[in-house]
Amino acid sequence: MTENNLKRERASSGRRLDILRGAVEMTHGSGGRASAQLIGELFAKHLTNEWLDQGHDGAVMPPITRPVAVSCDAHVVKPLFFPGGDIGRLAVTGTVNDVAMCGAKPLWLSAAFILEEGFPLKDLEKIVQSMAETAREAGVAVVTGDTKVVEKGHGDGVYIATTGIGERLAGHMISGAQARPGDRVIVSGSIGDHGMTVMSLREDMTFGTDLKSDCAPLGKMVERILAAAPSTHVLRDPTRGGLGTTLNEIAAESVVGITLHEAAIPVKDEVRAACEFLGLDPLYSACEGRLIAIVPEAESEAALAAIQSDSHGTGAAIIGEVTAENPGFVEMVTLMGGRRMVDWLTGEQLPRIC
Amino acid sequence: MTENNLKRERASSGRRLDILRGAVEMTHGSGGRASAQLIGELFAKHLTNEWLDQGHDGAVMPPITRPVAVSCDAHVVKPLFFPGGDIGRLAVTGTVNDVAMCGAKPLWLSAAFILEEGFPLKDLEKIVQSMAETAREAGVAVVTGDTKVVEKGHGDGVYIATTGIGERLAGHMISGAQARPGDRVIVSGSIGDHGMTVMSLREDMTFGTDLKSDCAPLGKMVERILAAAPSTHVLRDPTRGGLGTTLNEIAAESVVGITLHEAAIPVKDEVRAACEFLGLDPLYSACEGRLIAIVPEAESEAALAAIQSDSHGTGAAIIGEVTAENPGFVEMVTLMGGRRMVDWLTGEQLPRIC
Repeated sequence: MTENNLKRERASSGRRLDILRGAVEMTHGSGGRASAQLIGELFAKHLTNEWLDQGHDGAVMPPITRPVAVSCDAHVVKPLFFPGGDIGRLAVTGTVNDVAMCGAKPLWLSAAFILEEGFPLKDLEKIVQSMAETAREAGVAVVTGDTKVVEKGHGDGVYIATTGIGERLAGHMISGAQARPGDRVIVSGSIGDHGMTVMSLREDMTFGTDLKSDCAPLGKMVERILAAAPSTHVLRDPTRGGLGTTLNEIAAESVVGITLHEAAIPVKDEVRAACEFLGLDPLYSACEGRLIAIVPEAESEAALAAIQSDSHGTGAAIIGEVTAENPGFVEMVTLMGGRRMVDWLTGEQLPRIC
Repeated sequence: MTENNLKRERASSGRRLDILRGAVEMTHGSGGRASAQLIGELFAKHLTNEWLDQGHDGAVMPPITRPVAVSCDAHVVKPLFFPGGDIGRLAVTGTVNDVAMCGAKPLWLSAAFILEEGFPLKDLEKIVQSMAETAREAGVAVVTGDTKVVEKGHGDGVYIATTGIGERLAGHMISGAQARPGDRVIVSGSIGDHGMTVMSLREDMTFGTDLKSDCAPLGKMVERILAAAPSTHVLRDPTRGGLGTTLNEIAAESVVGITLHEAAIPVKDEVRAACEFLGLDPLYSACEGRLIAIVPEAESEAALAAIQSDSHGTGAAIIGEVTAENPGFVEMVTLMGGRRMVDWLTGEQLPRIC
């Protein structure tokens, strides 16, 4: 009998987990037999890889000989399932994208689950399957995890915190502080799709039937960008707070101004319609599969072409430029030809969006 | 004006966070100005280090030239503050210890916070300060983080998920699958202190006044062990599920039997008393600052001396040995001289303990 079989048999005591009809119980979080069974028969079954299968409290992987990039996210999106994704897909993409935005190739993920007592195991399995598929798509392995259970009424089914670890591909620091006057600002596709998809579900809006989250892993797009435009200064994914807030952060960190051209910013008709209905602004609506690249002018067309050659970047566009004037501020040339300030998101526009 | 000052000023819009009287609001999780302010004025203030201060969505650190150890934990302990620690200290120790149990030196931590709307900012600051102090004690840096907010009534004040990254010191794999017949089983101190401290608080037990969590970082103890006993086979911290469950896991993974000597297992009188009162068994009560070392007999005395030389290991003892008989099972020679099986924890003995 192999070690894993013996462990599984000793832990399960014979009965299999009833995934079809079962629910999360407090015992699944107590670290004993029930925990081991949930991990073995649900989590490890789908997320299996050589490191996770070590079955230790931690995983040991090979050295990383390039600078190490690390990022983490807690995911509390409501509802848990939405067109274009679910909390499992989001928990992988949100974190691998943050690692990729360091100019890095994501390698490994950790995943900590906070489950609510009573949550259906079949929904949990759907989420874990979705994580596993998205991890394969992103080329990363979930190497270690943890599961805790909180009483019914606490939590909202599932919260997932993920940490991503990668190796930097770029030879230089890529960060929000590196934008320079003259750089071009590129966005990899239409903005606000994810935010408005989740909001329209929550508001039970019927006209939102065509809305779909853009939620996607962007590691491979970043590899293409760095190959085509090795001097890239900034990579950032405009998630919570949207394009508007993310560009304000960059303007402040880099001590530069940013000018946007409203006519160039890609926004889908259905996103625009949902925003108008809800009184929201697409500039502050979250994306989960888009990136902003800020690139020296000389490499900007090459970067744009690289992004457009990626299946997640077909809608990319150059939407603005970095200026020496008005450091710390973002302004926009409007469709009417006027100019207006684009401020930080100040209120609570979109809670529980990721 | 420096970049960070500009970012802070642009983000805060002048008003400072009122930590003394303020509370967590939904806007603190929306990714806009309020989020940036909470991160800057509360989290980054205490956890500051060169990598966190990069202020990017991810952090970039130097390469790791030895095998990389990664572990993660979600922390949902209730209550959040207890004698000997709080959820902040626990979130650091729980994860650095899991990394250390890979035979590794913990280097970096990520921390994801799920905050409940209405949670007092002064309590949050206490928790973050405690994390910062414990991280310094453990010699690790919190390099990246995330903050989400859920509505009042969801969550329980604060959940914290941490991931630890370290470099393996040992030249060989140290894991639960490496125990061999003849090895000695060492525990680094009295068992069950953490679990019974939290339980007695929850049960409002007055006799528990001397109880205190053992919650402590063990990275330095592991370095001592590996220097004194380089052939160490297994390192494991008996957290949820306690000594009994952890040894069962090891017995199953290593396909060996384990024999314990009840008389040798250190249990504090107050832990024993609390267990008797609540009808619980110290063997299944969680520790958060103890480890189990399973070491070849020839190096076992050296390992014991190394542990005892550490400030967190003064109560260490050899409590049993690994056998070829009864693979997958743990038995105990009782105080009366009889023998009984020590099974996995099966029920929900201690929920929300870490």
